[in-house]
Amino acid sequence: MAACTVYSTQSLRTNISIPTSSSKTHVGFNQKQVVFYTKSNNKRLNNTSRYLITCKASDSQTIVIGLAADSGCGKSTFMRRLTSVFGGNPDSNTLISDTTTVICLDDYHSLDRTGRKEKGVTALDPRANDFDLMYEQVKAIKDGISVQKPIYNHVTGLLDPPELIKPPKILVIEGLHPMYDSRVRDLLDFSIYLDISNEVKFAWKIQRDMAERGHSLESIKASIEARKPDFEAYIDPQKQYADAVIEVLPTQLIPDDNEGKILRVRLIQKEGVKYFSPVYLFDEGSTISWIPCGRKLTCSYPGIKFFYGPESYKGNEVSVVEMDGQFDRLDELIYVESHLSNLSSKFYGEVTQQMLKHADFPGSNNGTGLFQTIVGLKIRDLFEQIVASRAETPVGATKA
Amino acid sequence: MAACTVYSTQSLRTNISIPTSSSKTHVGFNQKQVVFYTKSNNKRLNNTSRYLITCKASDSQTIVIGLAADSGCGKSTFMRRLTSVFGGNPDSNTLISDTTTVICLDDYHSLDRTGRKEKGVTALDPRANDFDLMYEQVKAIKDGISVQKPIYNHVTGLLDPPELIKPPKILVIEGLHPMYDSRVRDLLDFSIYLDISNEVKFAWKIQRDMAERGHSLESIKASIEARKPDFEAYIDPQKQYADAVIEVLPTQLIPDDNEGKILRVRLIQKEGVKYFSPVYLFDEGSTISWIPCGRKLTCSYPGIKFFYGPESYKGNEVSVVEMDGQFDRLDELIYVESHLSNLSSKFYGEVTQQMLKHADFPGSNNGTGLFQTIVGLKIRDLFEQIVASRAETPVGATKA
Repeated sequence: MAACTVYSTQSLRTNISIPTSSSKTHVGFNQKQVVFYTKSNNKRLNNTSRYLITCKASDSQTIVIGLAADSGCGKSTFMRRLTSVFGGNPDSNTLISDTTTVICLDDYHSLDRTGRKEKGVTALDPRANDFDLMYEQVKAIKDGISVQKPIYNHVTGLLDPPELIKPPKILVIEGLHPMYDSRVRDLLDFSIYLDISNEVKFAWKIQRDMAERGHSLESIKASIEARKPDFEAYIDPQKQYADAVIEVLPTQLIPDDNEGKILRVRLIQKEGVKYFSPVYLFDEGSTISWIPCGRKLTCSYPGIKFFYGPESYKGNEVSVVEMDGQFDRLDELIYVESHLSNLSSKFYGEVTQQMLKHADFPGSNNGTGLFQTIVGLKIRDLFEQIVASRAETPVGATKA
Repeated sequence: MAACTVYSTQSLRTNISIPTSSSKTHVGFNQKQVVFYTKSNNKRLNNTSRYLITCKASDSQTIVIGLAADSGCGKSTFMRRLTSVFGGNPDSNTLISDTTTVICLDDYHSLDRTGRKEKGVTALDPRANDFDLMYEQVKAIKDGISVQKPIYNHVTGLLDPPELIKPPKILVIEGLHPMYDSRVRDLLDFSIYLDISNEVKFAWKIQRDMAERGHSLESIKASIEARKPDFEAYIDPQKQYADAVIEVLPTQLIPDDNEGKILRVRLIQKEGVKYFSPVYLFDEGSTISWIPCGRKLTCSYPGIKFFYGPESYKGNEVSVVEMDGQFDRLDELIYVESHLSNLSSKFYGEVTQQMLKHADFPGSNNGTGLFQTIVGLKIRDLFEQIVASRAETPVGATKA
């Protein structure tokens, strides 16, 4: 059963090319598609009025997850872990499991590399991104309607021909701005921000761009500095809207460490989010620091330290779980897992099993891998709770 | 069944007066008494040879607990809590429950107040105490033999006529020197040291001696200073032998606090002691700090902070549980109790029940009361384990 709405989308401003040869399809359950007539700045298309047809099937709505982070900040590793939790193949390029589709928001760049250079804006700048189209396509998918999504080609810096995205059970939109536009934000059932501190970002960039790509230290510094103003203006403020923030900081176990190899990672979980019950250590709502190393668990220098407690974060009440240090042996994680509660795992040891399964992924021996895996379990749980709550609700009562 | 040994005790040097009109009693099970013929320095008695008769009933040996502390350091409150745990009446002056007898080691002063003044020694000095008699009487009681214990009268500063002490199930010897003499120490099944830091001791003395007894601040300071050298030479070193130390320190929750009202109390538990399994918080063998105040437990300033972890103490491996701060409401203790393990309680909430029962005792709202109660439970458990292990061992196999 689907309820359809037709409305005009005069406000769209985009230079994405969308094929004009579309035809209305029969709008029925599990068979929905929307046609976008777009205003093209490059004159390939005439300026036409557009109509959006939304067909909402109340019992099969797509659940939308937003994942925000700077480029090179582990989004893809996170997506691979999430895909694995949902039973998909994390080594697939498309990262699409049976249930999950991932959209990279770079595909909504309204300006390609040349266009950005001409106008003097970075990819971080909202003016280089088409939030109207982003909103309308995410909304369409959420409402069960397939869309022709543009593709931004990172190699050429140009926009490739679009691809068809059918509504999945879970849509993940990942990139720089999933929570920037309030309309897109309101579509999100859950949102995550991967927050890499400047010190760690710098250490990682040196590792990647200097060691692997032969860039100079100066050019790396310059490129980071150049991104800073726009990053702080447009990306960073999205933290306040995130239901979960994974914050990656230098270790505090080694004084004045700036190698960026040993990390202190904080999972900042917003309180009061429907279908999301924050993970805690030992005792919910209290403040705890825990050094598991000791008589039962042997850790090499500088050891491992956990923290848990309530905090205030960007004006929100949150619960923080923190891990500083790294595991010598990944199977020791079961010891830590056994002391964490509200993990939403399906069986004892599932977190450890997931981590061991992908021990080769970056961050598997520290808090980034641990918390990415845990957030994956929380998203699966959220999904299952939403599905269960819909099954309980009679269709006629959805607006009650 | 009892095995009796008769041996001479020529080495005894004591000036304690013991009645000479003693008669040998029938030595049988549960009916044993020993006669001490003492060499009296005050010439009231002739110098006589003495014989000690020990009758050891292998299945009813008294368990001996040593409790060391300076005077005015809460030993009597501790004894009242211990008596209560064993089901006795803590308001009885003799503090003797059905199972427990308490001997104050001041009764083994070999010099009375005048004698000490003449010789220029304090009560802390081993020369003012008769360790031979202490050893022999404790050994006799442990072996199931009644003794005529001297009584030191604190009011007169003289030695009163002795009293008969029958072997109880549990003998507690409390005072300045329960672990000073190695022979006495070896008789102890469990030992506790109440360690009040100088800052807190000073604050308490001011409270008691200045407010209640009208002493001047200078005289209090002078009396503490005068005791220090002997205290450090003879009392303090006993810590190293204690199975449990209750350390009372100023709070760390208020910077530079020296009021001594809010306390940080540490229960230092020796590892590897037979029949004694240290209490722990959340996770045995790891290091944890815990602020229970938060969303579930509301605490007023300065709050409550717990710590647990392995440490090294006077060359021994120990496990420490620490509580800083005080309870606003004693019934909130159940929340803390539920997170402590190895309490040796007989039912959930027994610690809280004991604390509530004696809420008027000093220290009931802080770690002194909490840890005294816990040590009481541990002693009861130790006693029951020893009794159970004896019941399991055939009588003929005691020396196997």
